[in-house]
Amino acid sequence: MKTIKIFPLLIIFFLATSCKSQKNHFRHNLMPVPRSFKIEKNKFVIDENFSISVTDKANRRVNVATTKFLRRLSDRTGIFLKNGFAYNKNEINQPDLKIKFNRPGKLEINENESYHLKIEKNKISIDAETDIGVIYALETLLQLIDYDENGYFIQAAVIDDRPRFTWRGLMIDVARHFQPVEVIKRNLDAMAAVKMNVFHWHLSDDQGFRMESKTHPELHLLASDGRYYTQDQIKEVVQYASDRGIRVVPEIDVPGHATAILTAFPELASRNRKYMLERNAGIFNPTLDPTNEKTYRILVDLFGEMAALFPDKYFHIGGDENEGKDWDASIKIQLFMKQHALHSNHELQTYFNIKLQKILSGYGKKLMGWEEIMTPKMPKTALIHSWKGVNEGLPAGQSLINAVKNGYQTILSNGYYIDLMLPASSHYLVDPIPEHARLTAIQKARILGGEATMWSELVTPLSIDSRIWPRTAAIAERFWSPKEVRNVRDMYRRLEETSFRLEELGIMHIRNKDVILRKLANNQSVDALEDLSDVCEPLKIYTRNKGGTEYQSFSPFSLFADACTADAPDALRFSNLTNDYVAQANASAKKQMLKMLKKWSKNHEIFRQLKQNPMLKDIEPLSVCLSDFSSITMKMLNGKKLDISEINQAYQHIKKQVADVELALVKPFKKLIKNYARKNKLKIKLN
Amino acid sequence: MKTIKIFPLLIIFFLATSCKSQKNHFRHNLMPVPRSFKIEKNKFVIDENFSISVTDKANRRVNVATTKFLRRLSDRTGIFLKNGFAYNKNEINQPDLKIKFNRPGKLEINENESYHLKIEKNKISIDAETDIGVIYALETLLQLIDYDENGYFIQAAVIDDRPRFTWRGLMIDVARHFQPVEVIKRNLDAMAAVKMNVFHWHLSDDQGFRMESKTHPELHLLASDGRYYTQDQIKEVVQYASDRGIRVVPEIDVPGHATAILTAFPELASRNRKYMLERNAGIFNPTLDPTNEKTYRILVDLFGEMAALFPDKYFHIGGDENEGKDWDASIKIQLFMKQHALHSNHELQTYFNIKLQKILSGYGKKLMGWEEIMTPKMPKTALIHSWKGVNEGLPAGQSLINAVKNGYQTILSNGYYIDLMLPASSHYLVDPIPEHARLTAIQKARILGGEATMWSELVTPLSIDSRIWPRTAAIAERFWSPKEVRNVRDMYRRLEETSFRLEELGIMHIRNKDVILRKLANNQSVDALEDLSDVCEPLKIYTRNKGGTEYQSFSPFSLFADACTADAPDALRFSNLTNDYVAQANASAKKQMLKMLKKWSKNHEIFRQLKQNPMLKDIEPLSVCLSDFSSITMKMLNGKKLDISEINQAYQHIKKQVADVELALVKPFKKLIKNYARKNKLKIKLN
Repeated sequence: MKTIKIFPLLIIFFLATSCKSQKNHFRHNLMPVPRSFKIEKNKFVIDENFSISVTDKANRRVNVATTKFLRRLSDRTGIFLKNGFAYNKNEINQPDLKIKFNRPGKLEINENESYHLKIEKNKISIDAETDIGVIYALETLLQLIDYDENGYFIQAAVIDDRPRFTWRGLMIDVARHFQPVEVIKRNLDAMAAVKMNVFHWHLSDDQGFRMESKTHPELHLLASDGRYYTQDQIKEVVQYASDRGIRVVPEIDVPGHATAILTAFPELASRNRKYMLERNAGIFNPTLDPTNEKTYRILVDLFGEMAALFPDKYFHIGGDENEGKDWDASIKIQLFMKQHALHSNHELQTYFNIKLQKILSGYGKKLMGWEEIMTPKMPKTALIHSWKGVNEGLPAGQSLINAVKNGYQTILSNGYYIDLMLPASSHYLVDPIPEHARLTAIQKARILGGEATMWSELVTPLSIDSRIWPRTAAIAERFWSPKEVRNVRDMYRRLEETSFRLEELGIMHIRNKDVILRKLANNQSVDALEDLSDVCEPLKIYTRNKGGTEYQSFSPFSLFADACTADAPDALRFSNLTNDYVAQANASAKKQMLKMLKKWSKNHEIFRQLKQNPMLKDIEPLSVCLSDFSSITMKMLNGKKLDISEINQAYQHIKKQVADVELALVKPFKKLIKNYARKNKLKIKLN
Repeated sequence: MKTIKIFPLLIIFFLATSCKSQKNHFRHNLMPVPRSFKIEKNKFVIDENFSISVTDKANRRVNVATTKFLRRLSDRTGIFLKNGFAYNKNEINQPDLKIKFNRPGKLEINENESYHLKIEKNKISIDAETDIGVIYALETLLQLIDYDENGYFIQAAVIDDRPRFTWRGLMIDVARHFQPVEVIKRNLDAMAAVKMNVFHWHLSDDQGFRMESKTHPELHLLASDGRYYTQDQIKEVVQYASDRGIRVVPEIDVPGHATAILTAFPELASRNRKYMLERNAGIFNPTLDPTNEKTYRILVDLFGEMAALFPDKYFHIGGDENEGKDWDASIKIQLFMKQHALHSNHELQTYFNIKLQKILSGYGKKLMGWEEIMTPKMPKTALIHSWKGVNEGLPAGQSLINAVKNGYQTILSNGYYIDLMLPASSHYLVDPIPEHARLTAIQKARILGGEATMWSELVTPLSIDSRIWPRTAAIAERFWSPKEVRNVRDMYRRLEETSFRLEELGIMHIRNKDVILRKLANNQSVDALEDLSDVCEPLKIYTRNKGGTEYQSFSPFSLFADACTADAPDALRFSNLTNDYVAQANASAKKQMLKMLKKWSKNHEIFRQLKQNPMLKDIEPLSVCLSDFSSITMKMLNGKKLDISEINQAYQHIKKQVADVELALVKPFKKLIKNYARKNKLKIKLN
């Protein structure tokens, strides 16, 4: 990683985004924000004659990207384009969009992904070193399309862009709940749209082994419930990713998280017992026996197959959460440790990891693993994946700092655990280079980037998109854009537009909400449920699945909680209005709040008219609570006299967790109560 | 096909569905209606201990079906089932659902697909000859799930069921617009849910060749725009279909509809010119040269590859719409015809077909083709696919009658062209055995069934589901249920429920409507557009794509017309209410109508508040028209005085086609105007 230079142009961009009242004001919806962005006069008007020329139409990535670009442009604008495909540069004289690039990009770290995009009155040009830069330029261009009643156009501008970090990843766990190829593909499309370039495929865990193995078919036949990717499908996904400039890093998690492998091969276990696919969530004891030569024989075969399928240099061996209980309990393993002077389970795991490293090295691969692999004897060629933090009782991302100080390359996932169901803002403000850390330039350069992690205990293909998106777009911006870009409210503004546009790529996060609500209502009107779900959020930080046993692999995952998302949209809106109202006594904010409150206060009446079923009964208390909150808050805003006990009761109610969700109005309610108490000189204590 | 016997039990079913006021009334939502259905007392209550035992868990179809059944049961009811998988019969003592079957079904015509389903207070049993019968029984069971506020249950009943026709197909054209594997898979799931058993895969046409060919890769590399199925994907689809009891019949359309093949192999053409993939819709001249030996050499290779991929006995060679113009224009071909005493293009095509038949026979396949292949010398082993009708200036399904009289087996598609965008009722009332035809039992038995046909000139993966479903479910009922089941209003009632439940299988017809509307509104509220689209229908019978050139392959297909569907739901509702009101002066109907009209009359106000763009401007006249119609109709219903010219003007407006849709309120409006004129003794002439 090179040190970051902020171009002077960036300042212009900041002016452009922040000054609402400025003349010639232009607010763009770009996400991630480019490195430099300069607005010019004029605009490029899109019409049916729109044409593209490219340096080399035979280039697969550019061919895929331009064809898809034209389809999206046409669908978005409704314009019947006459040219459905790009031309080779010699086939056309004056193309509207001229694309130049020098060479196909390599899918490896520190590849050139930059592009230069210039939009003028009558022409647009893209210049990039690699075809990957071209892909990103086209995505930026699509994000710039604007409209008025006369038509669609693009504001004239000059953009110079390149990423801050070279590793901008999304991990998807397909072990706990299998995600079919189409889920992966649509998410790869969405990743490319926000300029992410690493898909980390968590293929094996206690709950399933998801890859067809030709050398050891027991793995997928006995340990997947029939839900796995064929090798042909894996090739298809790798090609699909490559077409979008995305690397694919596979993970087989060993020696812990190995119940699935041991279901197929119990003889590799550290302890002799019956192994069956795990149906719960959590940390489990089944662990590979690192003293058994057969363990390595099978891994040699398996990694060999995978090395042929996955062209990427990096190979993720997991290595996390091995508590070593089964090692402690094994006389054979204890003896082995003594014989080999291995003084702790850490040392035994290092012994194991180093063997894997040699296997992988033989296949031309670099080993990477979760931070637990960073033990004193671990070779510096390994890449450390930092994931622990406050949840695990450690300082956030401490291992990242340790890693770079120890001379390892590293990437960060602590802070980007999207399955925690935290707001986008919390992820957005985590920088892969911790501010407090005093690092040298060389050490900083070892921080390659980060990965959002989608663990799948509680998601199925129906809900996974709404757990990944749109929040991952905010994380993508963190990985791509200059570090100074961190205005949360502007991020949320752009995120709303980005989220909407992800639908174009087949992402289901918006449309599947109604599918779940319709099911809950048995095809009755979903109006009341929609309004309710827009202020409810699923429980956070693993409190939804208490002890990991409430939800099992085959539990229902199309409940009300699954229709709700982090950053409940109406709650977010109400919260922003509350801030404006309390800080500035903003009359317009108050008016909008009252409108929302009025709607909510009547919502339970509508809810009650539905023919009830047990799932609706489960969420009825939420509906009641929203009505009560709304009535009281309306009274507060209108300056009516209220009883302290009444307020307190409503506040206690709103904090309650019901049906695995919470009303995301606690904070604004608290703020409004305090404001009301101050104005009315009431003493009220909220806890 | 055996002659149909109507069991006495069927009468009980009819009583049960038609007598609303009857005591112990039970209205089921089954679609297709089973052959016999008997309601019993009691009900089976579903709880978390629900368990299944099966004769043989190793049976793949039953394993897939029961696992999916449990997932759907759990998601639908929200019950945390303790048993996520079925047990082998010896593993469990008292299962709630006991499944017995004798053998795996064969995927061929006249296989036993029957089942017996008995629901009692504390247990359910399924008995079937084959695993295919088990699949259908499970689907019936899912359709029977009912609920009240205390929970989910199934009414006790005894069902004996088997299909009326053995060929219950859906054809999907993937040539004109490619449909990725996931589109095919979800439609296979939906097919199984309504007991359809043939997927006819139209793989090649003028606009694209969609199958990877290993012997002649030019076909998919040069003639698909990169959009084709790999052979691995085809195997995957065939297996997926087989798991659901569905046969897959491939079609390569020859000698006409051959532009794609000739794009790859121009030397096979009847005429020497440049060939490029067709971008328009229609009938085109490019035709294979039946006098060229290389034509057969390539088809031998291609059919050989396909014979290995598609285990089904039948192979569809198309054969339609060859107008022979390029044959007429070729001196070489004319000479050949003379030399071989072929006196017409028909005879030349028969010569060609017979050669194909021999090729296919060598691969163990039976030839089938569109009705044009039925020429005097065509061997009787061919299966005739009847498709022409009134649109083509012929009596409906005449070729079907001719075929069976000539001794051919046949299936019917005329009447089931779902791309015509006609109402479900029109397809529903077409019987595969024409009523007027005087056929012997042997002749009738040659009618194997029928196929709904989804031609894809105007559909993309975004809209295709809403063109196939729910109307195809009504066609599926026609193919499965006793012919006496033809109450249109009850069909529509059950179709609404069936349509909703198809969402569970991933069908996108409901959810993608809002996706298109959100796009049209650029993420503004879609309320006004939703209400408008619920009374608008896309233009019918190919009038949308005038001359086949208005829309090309890469035109935009997410316009307002693409959000609208046949059987516009609110228009259908209003139409039913109008019938009730006019026929019975029904006060409740009038009240409901006024409510709808009031909403519509205000809709344009909401529409106008949207920030406009060209796509919205295109549909504005519709919005205005709906408001005008509503105001006038409210006045008529309320007995206000109206001017004849005012009524006439509104009527002329409402008939106008705008933005490729029509307001589906013309008929009820006409009825209401006549009713008003009669009451007020006005003379009004509508045309």
